[in-house]
This record gives sequence, structure tokens and C-alpha cells, in this order.
Amino acid sequence: MTNYLDKINGTSDLKKLKGSQLNELASEIRDFLLENISQTGGHLASNLGTVELTIALHHYLNSPTDKIIWDVGHQAYTHKILTGRKNCFTKLRQKNGLSGYPKCTESPHDIIGAGHSSTSISAALGLALARENLNQIGDIYSVIGDGALTGGMAFEALNHAGHIGADINVILNDNEMSISDNVGAISSYLNSLRSDPTLKKVQADIEFLLNKIPKFGKTVSNTVDRVKAALKYSFIQGVLFEEFGFKYLGPIDGHNINELIKYFQQAEKIEGPVLLHVLTKKGKGYPPAENNPDQFHGVGPFNLKDGSSKKTKSKPSYSKVFGECLTKIAAQDKRVAGITAAMPSGTGLNIFAKAFPDRYYDVGIAEQHAITMSTGLARGGMKPVCALYSTFLQRAYDQVIHDAAIQNLDLTIAIDRAGIVGNDGETHQGLFDYSFLRPIPNLVMMAPKNAEQLQQMLYTAINYSGPAILRYPRGSIRGQYLPLPVEELQELEIGKAKEVLAVKKETLITILAIGSTVEPAVKAAEILNKNGYQTALVDARFIKPLDQEIILKALNNSQNIITVEEQVLAGGFSSAVLELAADNGIKINKIKRIGIGDQFVNQGGMEEMKKEYDLDARGILKNALSLLDKAEEVDELWPEKKD
Amino acid sequence: MTNYLDKINGTSDLKKLKGSQLNELASEIRDFLLENISQTGGHLASNLGTVELTIALHHYLNSPTDKIIWDVGHQAYTHKILTGRKNCFTKLRQKNGLSGYPKCTESPHDIIGAGHSSTSISAALGLALARENLNQIGDIYSVIGDGALTGGMAFEALNHAGHIGADINVILNDNEMSISDNVGAISSYLNSLRSDPTLKKVQADIEFLLNKIPKFGKTVSNTVDRVKAALKYSFIQGVLFEEFGFKYLGPIDGHNINELIKYFQQAEKIEGPVLLHVLTKKGKGYPPAENNPDQFHGVGPFNLKDGSSKKTKSKPSYSKVFGECLTKIAAQDKRVAGITAAMPSGTGLNIFAKAFPDRYYDVGIAEQHAITMSTGLARGGMKPVCALYSTFLQRAYDQVIHDAAIQNLDLTIAIDRAGIVGNDGETHQGLFDYSFLRPIPNLVMMAPKNAEQLQQMLYTAINYSGPAILRYPRGSIRGQYLPLPVEELQELEIGKAKEVLAVKKETLITILAIGSTVEPAVKAAEILNKNGYQTALVDARFIKPLDQEIILKALNNSQNIITVEEQVLAGGFSSAVLELAADNGIKINKIKRIGIGDQFVNQGGMEEMKKEYDLDARGILKNALSLLDKAEEVDELWPEKKD
Repeated sequence: MTNYLDKINGTSDLKKLKGSQLNELASEIRDFLLENISQTGGHLASNLGTVELTIALHHYLNSPTDKIIWDVGHQAYTHKILTGRKNCFTKLRQKNGLSGYPKCTESPHDIIGAGHSSTSISAALGLALARENLNQIGDIYSVIGDGALTGGMAFEALNHAGHIGADINVILNDNEMSISDNVGAISSYLNSLRSDPTLKKVQADIEFLLNKIPKFGKTVSNTVDRVKAALKYSFIQGVLFEEFGFKYLGPIDGHNINELIKYFQQAEKIEGPVLLHVLTKKGKGYPPAENNPDQFHGVGPFNLKDGSSKKTKSKPSYSKVFGECLTKIAAQDKRVAGITAAMPSGTGLNIFAKAFPDRYYDVGIAEQHAITMSTGLARGGMKPVCALYSTFLQRAYDQVIHDAAIQNLDLTIAIDRAGIVGNDGETHQGLFDYSFLRPIPNLVMMAPKNAEQLQQMLYTAINYSGPAILRYPRGSIRGQYLPLPVEELQELEIGKAKEVLAVKKETLITILAIGSTVEPAVKAAEILNKNGYQTALVDARFIKPLDQEIILKALNNSQNIITVEEQVLAGGFSSAVLELAADNGIKINKIKRIGIGDQFVNQGGMEEMKKEYDLDARGILKNALSLLDKAEEVDELWPEKKD
Repeated sequence: MTNYLDKINGTSDLKKLKGSQLNELASEIRDFLLENISQTGGHLASNLGTVELTIALHHYLNSPTDKIIWDVGHQAYTHKILTGRKNCFTKLRQKNGLSGYPKCTESPHDIIGAGHSSTSISAALGLALARENLNQIGDIYSVIGDGALTGGMAFEALNHAGHIGADINVILNDNEMSISDNVGAISSYLNSLRSDPTLKKVQADIEFLLNKIPKFGKTVSNTVDRVKAALKYSFIQGVLFEEFGFKYLGPIDGHNINELIKYFQQAEKIEGPVLLHVLTKKGKGYPPAENNPDQFHGVGPFNLKDGSSKKTKSKPSYSKVFGECLTKIAAQDKRVAGITAAMPSGTGLNIFAKAFPDRYYDVGIAEQHAITMSTGLARGGMKPVCALYSTFLQRAYDQVIHDAAIQNLDLTIAIDRAGIVGNDGETHQGLFDYSFLRPIPNLVMMAPKNAEQLQQMLYTAINYSGPAILRYPRGSIRGQYLPLPVEELQELEIGKAKEVLAVKKETLITILAIGSTVEPAVKAAEILNKNGYQTALVDARFIKPLDQEIILKALNNSQNIITVEEQVLAGGFSSAVLELAADNGIKINKIKRIGIGDQFVNQGGMEEMKKEYDLDARGILKNALSLLDKAEEVDELWPEKKD
């Protein structure tokens, strides 16, 4: 039982509280978050950091008439609690449960759905211009982290909003880091505002200047101080934002609800764009998270007492295999560099960073710059390996075409989190990359079926003298992990598939699989073969170039074809197969394409969601039997519970 | 005959000149540019503006050991002249001729190939880091316009380079405008540096402060001035760039070769990143271009005397039809807004801007922000129409997925310059959009065959209550232009194709065409029918959703199928057709897919390049005959000269 939280079923209940009651509520919300997230997993540190800020916003504003836009959105749990969704937290990030991000279909208080970074100022500006045109009312606040501010589109929006003087309020939620350590000049700049609002350099400059003036002496030192102070408050502080046309307010203690509200009142009186610089602490109130906010950014279930993970020891992730293998290759070749956009541990590049700090570059949440800087490295003779999540590579699409592919430069793009990503849901799925990369000339693109192939493919990509792309899924590897010594790494022949189960004349079924779908396809094929349905299996390995020889052989010799890919069906692997068939005048007898149809994939456990789209062994089996008009046999060959 | 230019066959020849000789050379280069571009067409104003800057760079630096990176690259003609390519200017931007942009395969002096904006600082940083790792030598300069600085990735790069203190030199080529008038707070900021280096606001602030101090009186007014001046030079000027970690030098007269070189010398002495603020004048030295730089940004052949175009009056462009129709619709519906990313006249939105300045937004070269701001407008109840070139929409790919499609918001994206774009070449082709947009759920995407359909489709897109995309080509419309009054605009049924020539049982050939390929396909079909080859024709109109009924009917009833699209073949329209066939168990007897194969398309005249890829009527005819094993008849049915 709580004193206040139990009674909060909407923002109107919140408005009844005041003073210390709000602080007590904050403390109750923190307990609520800890209790729930320790059981369900979720974004912890960022949400513990924004409890007071969110209470202050909803207490002062009148949502949804006033509009609050959460950049990225992984810090909006308190917002969800205060807007009537606290009872949904037991199903946080689960299938059919509460989203971990703002979602317009979930609540009228979720003004802008999100998941990716740096979009909130653009969205706020759009809303402000609509308000102006349609004579609407309401204040507009966007809440953006200092990490998200390294994304270029945030600057595009600041530049535009400042120029036209739009009446929006941007809360810079400065917790001194994005997901890992923050990078960039802006970060240093914020640090200077934070740690020493008088800006030591400026102070020194002024002192120097004022001392230069002969008429100044000891007697006017008071004056000097006053000039300095005046300068500080009048225009030095936040000058960067002021130059963008924003009025700067702050720094503000983001855990002091009263102070926050006072600043909101002040902002309301200012016409035009305001930047409120709010200081918060990631993980606030929970020592394990305060001390280790990176580790507590996104967590699985954990023990509340000490923050230790509840997860039983699992297999290593693809990211780790990638990071270790890259480090090994880099030890042999000093031209190899590693580039990440603010995801060192997410991509496994932290392993590389430790070994080769001089060749490791974290560029901030700036995927466009990450790719183009990598092409610059390549042009200078290095062998850059830029590791990005599939969903974030979408941010650098033009750079892949314009700076990497057209220039045909020698870089490797490692796409992590490709395919279904699980609990982050729609905004984070990596389900489009085959389709958007396959049409680009000069690219080579491959997908490993397991940890061993990942290592061989990374080696192949780095040694290939052009733009090469490697795509692998989120989470733990399948099968065993044998870290290969560098001398055992071998280059795969570019564009060469592998017949895992040989295609013969008149093969009944051939499964064409790639990447993560190969191993479940093997299982399905084994069961089919055991039951008298002769099945062949091709691991395509490369989606570009496709192995024409082996795939044409399969198409020519099989009565039934199944393609299976962890990707949307429009334009992906199966389309490449169909194009090849069409261009070679092959009429496929029967074909079934397994993959994601024309819909966004919701949140849910990775295995659970894969099953839903028939991407597991049983799903593949079911489709094969269905092609043979034996759909009903699936329960016999593979009873549901076995999966 | 010239005194100097004739003798310049490389940068070593340039280094022999000095003082006034360099100025004379500049004048000769200007004449050379004017003479050539007036005949070939090309980028005029930007190149006239960078003559002295380029001479100074190549005189001072030792290219290609020292590296010069041209952002966008449309200002690099003088660079091409000085690096041994002056004799190629008669074939500027023509097929197999000199590229209008830096191209690595053209010269070792073209360090980074480009065409799109805002990439040069990222590339420079990559080169600098490679230099550091591989112990290379050479200075690195990137030259970026003030317009390109509104692109977010330029800020991502400034932020990163400033933070790590990379030793690069960024020349801000400030000509007070991008392609049209510049927008954004940065632009205002630069303007303040330019027009009044003392920054009036700061001056006023200081004056106010100093006057407040009682001990100051008339007697120390000299001191006040000195403080002000000192403040100005020490840290006020360029403070924005200084906050990013760059040393600011300038403003510098960009037409004074001596002054430029002096600043380069100064920059060389500074370790770490330097920003040189260089002021140039677009169109410098040619009054028609100086007075009208927007019009002289990219030009066709013109009369040197008065700058008048040599082009005979042509049909209106698709852009104009779009702009006029949008304006008409907006007159009826005050929710309609128009958004451009620095291309008001290129997209035809200038027409809309004149009529509805309050609902018109030019966001600068900032496509990401353009799309997401549009989604904000949509969320606020407006009906935004964001017009971008196909090649630049690649910059906003993630925003289309994350902010428009997942949120299923009601906006229209008008894709101009889709398909082959002609003389701009590889970097500007709009050949990927079907492929990268088709996989995205919730999108509706259509392509008009002519000006009338463009108007109907725009009306349809605006009235459709979700994200709708309209794709049309560069250049003049085909057929006649009848501006439709708004009451004659009708919504097309979403996803409905049209049988232009009916599909019958046992049709010999059915051509499935979309967008710009429909009209040449009609011509080809007419000739086929006239010669006894019974040919049907479907105008697909929508690539998403595809008209399953009509296309399945065509596939089921035709002995031969031809698909034709002005797009790459991987994942585009024909793939959608093949997917539909496969998913419905249809075995296509014979099919030929016309479109662009797995290669980047070079520069050349639009018609010339379309012909090369069989996208004209004769090409379609040829492919049809070839499917019938009658390839040899094409010369008889359509002798080459007739085309």
C-alpha cells in the first residue's frame, strides 16, 4: 500500500497533491519502478532519472492539451504511470502488453510515438506550426537527452525552430551520458555549463583583458567581478543555444519538483523557443544503477537487493562473438578500425575498444556521420568496420549509397540486431535491411547461420576490397561457440552458397534459407527426410551477390521450393530468388515464401514472435507439409509442446 | 589565347605564378567558365564564387598529398581546371564526359566523390584519423557552403571533430545562401558575423553592463571601447564554432587570394580543428548571375550577353504541375501545408509559397527534419505535403519508417526527380525509391503516367488518411498539360490499376507499366498490335498496394509478360509482380523485366540514358519482340532514326 500512488489514476489525481506530497509520490514511483522492472526487465536507469521531472511536467501542464514529447521514449515510464497505465506494468514490453515506448494507440497522452533518438524537436515544431495554423491552444514540451542531442536531426530542428522563433520548450534532460559515455564537443560544452557555470576559459579571458586595461587596479576588482558575473548571466551561459535562437534557462536541478515548476512558469512567460537545461541523475535513488548506469540502461529481471541479474548464464551473444573476432583480426592488421554510434557494449565493440583504443571511434548517436567518417577512413587506407543496429542503419541509408557504394570504398558494415528484436517492438525491428540494401550496386551482403560462420564472414568482409555488409541477429548464438584462432579464419568465396543437404534430380522439397533461418530449416529438413519427404537445403550465405549456380540448380531440380528469411517478404531474399528465376526463364512448380508480411511486428519475446511468423523449425516444417497438402501431419511429426 | 590559363596543365604550373598573375588567372578562369557553361550548361553561380578560393588553396597546398574535399561538389570546376582537366569542359556533364562533381576515378586530386550535401567534414575527419593511424602526412581541408551547414550530419561531424581535436581545416564558404535563400538560425548567426562583426546585441549588453558600474564614467569610455573590442576579438566572434571545439578564423574575403593564403598559413600553425569563415559571392564577376544567383545555380545553355536561356520554350515540368495543383487544393483546404528542404523552385513549391506563405516551410538542407516535422504537423491536424527529390529522400529513410509509417500519420510525400535524372549522374539518380519504400507497411505509393494523373494522384494522396507517396520524374511532362480545376479532381481508388489495352484470354503479350513508362509502353503496344502481335497494357498506377485483381488477371491470361519501370530491377515493381505471382501459385510462361540492372547509372541526357536502358518505346518494343523470338524485326517495325 502506498499513500499517494494508489490514488493516482490520471493526471487530475496528481494535481490534487502538492509540496512534500509530490516528493513522497516520487519516492513511491521509484519503488514501483524498481519492483516492476526487477521482475519484467526494461529501461531502468533512464526512468529512475526522470521521476521528478515527469511529476513536475504533469503537475504543471494540462496534458494532452499541453503536449509532452519524449525523445527516444525509453524514459517515459513515469509518464505512463501518471496517465492511467500503472496497472499494465506487469506486462511491460511483453506480447500484447504495455509498450516500453510512447505509443499513440496506447493513450491520448502519448502525443508522438518514438523509439529512435533525436526526433522530438522536429515533432514539437510540427505540432507548434499546426497549432498556429489551426488556432489550437496548449504548450508544447519536448524532453530530449544530452545523448540524443548528438544526432544531427536535432540540430536541423534547433536551427529551424530558433530561426522562425517557434514557441516551443525543449527540456534538455542532461544526465551526462547517452547510453554509454557521452561523446562530442556538445557534451564537453554541457559539462562546462554543469560543472562550472562561470566557464573557466571565459573567466580567464575576461580577467586577462580587464587586467590589461591600465586604469583598472585593485580598487576596481569588485567591478571586475561584477562585470564577470554580469557577463556570465547575461549571455555566456548557454550561448550555444542562444546562438541557435533559443532562450536558455538553467541549469536546473531535475530532482527538485518545486524548482522545476518555477522554471516552467518562467518559460511560459517567454515567447519563442526556450531551452531548459535540466540536470538529472541516471539510476537516481537506486545505488547499483547510480553507480553503473550503462549496465542498468536496459536490463532483464534482476535481484532488487544487489542488482544482480536473475538470468541464468546464457550463451554468448552474436555481438560478443563479433567483438572478439574483430579484435583478433585487428591484432594482425593495424589498418582495422572499429566505429560505433554510441553502442559500444551493444555491438561488442567495447571488446575491441579495450584492445585498440587508438583505432576505436565512438561518434555519438550519429549514424550518418559514422558511415561517412568510415568511408573517409577507408579512403585514407584503413579498413573500417562500422557496427550499427539494423534499425539505426536506416538513419544512414543515403550515406551507404552516396558515400560508400557509389565510391566503392573498402569498408565493412556490421549490422547487429537484424531480424526480430523482441521486446523493444516495432520501432526497433531489423526487418528491412535486405530490401533496402539489396538494390544498391557494389555492395556485398552476407548473413551467418551461426557463430562460426559469423567469424568467417567477418574475416571475409574485412578482406574483401569494397563495401561489404554482414548481418546477424540480436541475442545469444545458436549452437556452440568456438572462438577461431586467426590462422583458422578463411575467406569465403564471394557469392558462394552451400548445399547443406544436396539437391538431387527431382528433389521433393528444397529449402532456401539464409542467416538465422538456416539452423531451424536444418531441423525441419531432418524431420521431413526422416519421414520420407525428400528434402534438400541450401544455405544461401550471400544475399548479394546471390549464388546463381546453386540456386538455379535448386530451382530446376525441385518440385517444391521454400524460402525462409527473418525479414519482410517484400524485396528481400525470396524476391531475389524470384527475380533470378524470372530472368532465367524458370517456372517454379510450387513455392512458399516464409518471412514477415506487410505489417510492423509488435513487441514480444524473440522466440515467441519468430514462432508467430513461422520462422522456427516447426513453422518451416508446417509450411513444407502444407506445400505437399499434408498440413495436418505437423502435429504428428512435431507435436506443439516439443518446440 | 590567355596569358596564364593556357599554360596551366596541373597544379605545379599554378605554383609558378604569383601576386597579380594569380588575379589575372582568376579572371581568365572566370571567362573560361562563362564561355563553357554558357554552351554546355552546368553549375554557374557557385563556381564563379570559388575561383579565387580554389586558386589560393591549390597555390598554397600540395594536392593530392594535401587533401581538398569539396562538399556537394558543384563548386569544384576551378579545381578541375587547375588539376589538368580544362580540355574536358566541352563535354561537361555529358555522357562519357567530365562529371559535374568530384569523382575519384577522374583524378587523384578528387579525394572524395560527392554530389549530396554536408558530408565533407565527416570524410575529412575519417581521412585525418587514417593519417594519424598510418603516419601519413598532408593537410586536410574541407570546403562546405553555409547552406550545407544546415544538414544535420555536418553538426554530427563538427561535434565529433571538435571533441577529439582532430587537425582538420573546415572552410566555411559563406555566400549567404544555399541554392535558394538560406534558412535557419545558423544562417542568421553567420549573417550577424558578416554584417556586423561586433554583434550588436552583445555590444548593447556590454554597454549596458559597463554603464551600470558606477565608477565608470565618460573618462573611461575609451576603456569601455577597448573592453568591447577585446571581447569581440577574443571570444565573441565565431563563438558558436568555438563551442564546438573549433578555432574560428575570419571573416575572410574569399576573393582576395593573398588574404586567403595568409589565413591558410595561420591555420597551419594551429593544431586541432580550425574553421575558416570565407565570404564569397555567388555568380561573382558575371552581373546576371550576381543579381540572380538562384536562377544561375544550375543552368542550361545561355546567351553570354544577357544571361538569357538558349532553350526554346518547352513544356512545363512535373514540378510545376505539382506546385500549381497543390496550390489549388490548398485554396480549398486550409489544413494543407507545403514543406521543402531548400528546394522551393526545384520542387515547384515556390508557387505554393507565394499563395500561402503561412503554410509554407523551407527547413533548409535537412530532409530528416523535413519529414519528422511534417509528421508533427500531421499529428496536429494539418495535411502536410513534403516535396523532396528521390535521391535526397534517401536521407530521411528512417524518418519515413519510424515517424511516418509506424505512426501511420496523414502526410503526403511528393517524390520529385524520381527515375533517371540526366546530367547530374550517379549521385543524383532517383532509382531506388520503389525498392526502399515498398517494404514499409502502412505506406500507399503511386506514380503518375502524365500531368493529368499527377494532379489526380496528388488529390488522392492528400485525401487519403495515412502516409501516401507520389513519385514522378524530373523534367518536362509528356503529353499535354490541362490544369484541372479543383472540382474536377477525383480521388483514385487506392490500389486500383487500369487496363489501358484490355487483357483478353490468351493475350500474346501484356505489358505491365507504371509511372513514366506507361506512355512509351502505349506506343510500343500500338506498333505491336498494328503488326499482328496482340498486346495488352496495364497501367499499374499503384506500386503499393498492387492491384492484385488486374495483375493476376494479366498473369493468368498472357503468354508473355513484360514489366517496365524507371527504377532498379532489384526489389521494385517487377519484384512486386513476381511476389504476387509466386504467392498465388501462378507460373508465368515468359517474362521480361525492363529496368536498371545492378549498376549505378552514369551522367548523360535523360532521353539518351533512358534509351540505353530500353526505357523508351523502341526499347520496350525490342524487348517484346525478343520475347517472341522476333528480335530482328525491331529495325523494320521501328527504324532507329525514327526514335
